[in-house]
Amino acid sequence: MNPFASNIHLPEGLLTPHHTRITRRLSSMKGQYADQPAFDTMLAKEDTLIYEVYENKVPEVRGQLLHGTSIVHPGKVGDEYFMTKGHFHKVLATAEVYYCLHGHGFMMMETPEGESSAMELLPGMVLYVPPCWAHRSINIGNDDLVTLFIYPGDAGHDYGTIETKGFRKIIVENDSQPAIVDNPHWLAK
Amino acid sequence: MNPFASNIHLPEGLLTPHHTRITRRLSSMKGQYADQPAFDTMLAKEDTLIYEVYENKVPEVRGQLLHGTSIVHPGKVGDEYFMTKGHFHKVLATAEVYYCLHGHGFMMMETPEGESSAMELLPGMVLYVPPCWAHRSINIGNDDLVTLFIYPGDAGHDYGTIETKGFRKIIVENDSQPAIVDNPHWLAK
Repeated sequence: MNPFASNIHLPEGLLTPHHTRITRRLSSMKGQYADQPAFDTMLAKEDTLIYEVYENKVPEVRGQLLHGTSIVHPGKVGDEYFMTKGHFHKVLATAEVYYCLHGHGFMMMETPEGESSAMELLPGMVLYVPPCWAHRSINIGNDDLVTLFIYPGDAGHDYGTIETKGFRKIIVENDSQPAIVDNPHWLAK
Repeated sequence: MNPFASNIHLPEGLLTPHHTRITRRLSSMKGQYADQPAFDTMLAKEDTLIYEVYENKVPEVRGQLLHGTSIVHPGKVGDEYFMTKGHFHKVLATAEVYYCLHGHGFMMMETPEGESSAMELLPGMVLYVPPCWAHRSINIGNDDLVTLFIYPGDAGHDYGTIETKGFRKIIVENDSQPAIVDNPHWLAK
């Protein structure tokens, strides 16, 4: 395997070249936003693009490092900010590093045992998601939230746990400010 | 283990907070520059700071990701640009991701089998050093070369192989331009 390089274009977060581009629209996040009527009304109008991921393909084995850029667009479903689906790693005890390149957001994290942590993301910040913490990035700003992510090649993804249970905490706009509140639908879905 | 964040200050590359700061001065790189008389003359005047590394401490085990910033100062020993010591990972089949934040440089890489690759580093570039490639960053500009690096927690470092054999290729200034040339002392030390 030979060395290779990509370029990150800012502020849009495009990675060139890249191997994979994933787009997540509103319809792919059914049940993930707390305000279901607001979700339905929004989806009836348009299947809005919530976030995009550009990734470089490397063998998904130990010793390799998957990496790419994540772009969460600005917006809200009801009072809840646009966010990624959020996931644990399939190999639970694997970390992830995020470097914030543009925008303003939070990383919402939690463990299977119920600890929660929400850490701010601003350009220049390196955030360490330790092994065993589920994570989701949330855009609380008016511009794209762009991050560079790096995680072990053998980590894999477990989206199912979060799709089923949700995160214990969500971030909503309250008096024009982000507020971290309990997820009213946690585990209830 | 809880999530944590650091901030990278640019253009100087300072990571705050950080757990470890490593400084490498000229005296720690004996035998690594091709022009030994130039090295001796320079060292007689001052034990110049060549590069610095700020690193966050995480457990050095599988699943964790070591990360930090590297700052290679501008300068030359004879015609050869300031550079890091260069190393293989102790667990050879482990990759490293570099994101260039500031400056202008090259990553010199080679495999135990003798393949060489030199790739340019400019701000915005993500460079993938695949498993099994030794790597050294080289500053060819007039300003600090600052990179963010991420590698597996269990990778470890093997500096000895490069200290003993050197890299097959070096980068020297030739007519005010960087030139990749054979290392005259490769394996001969």
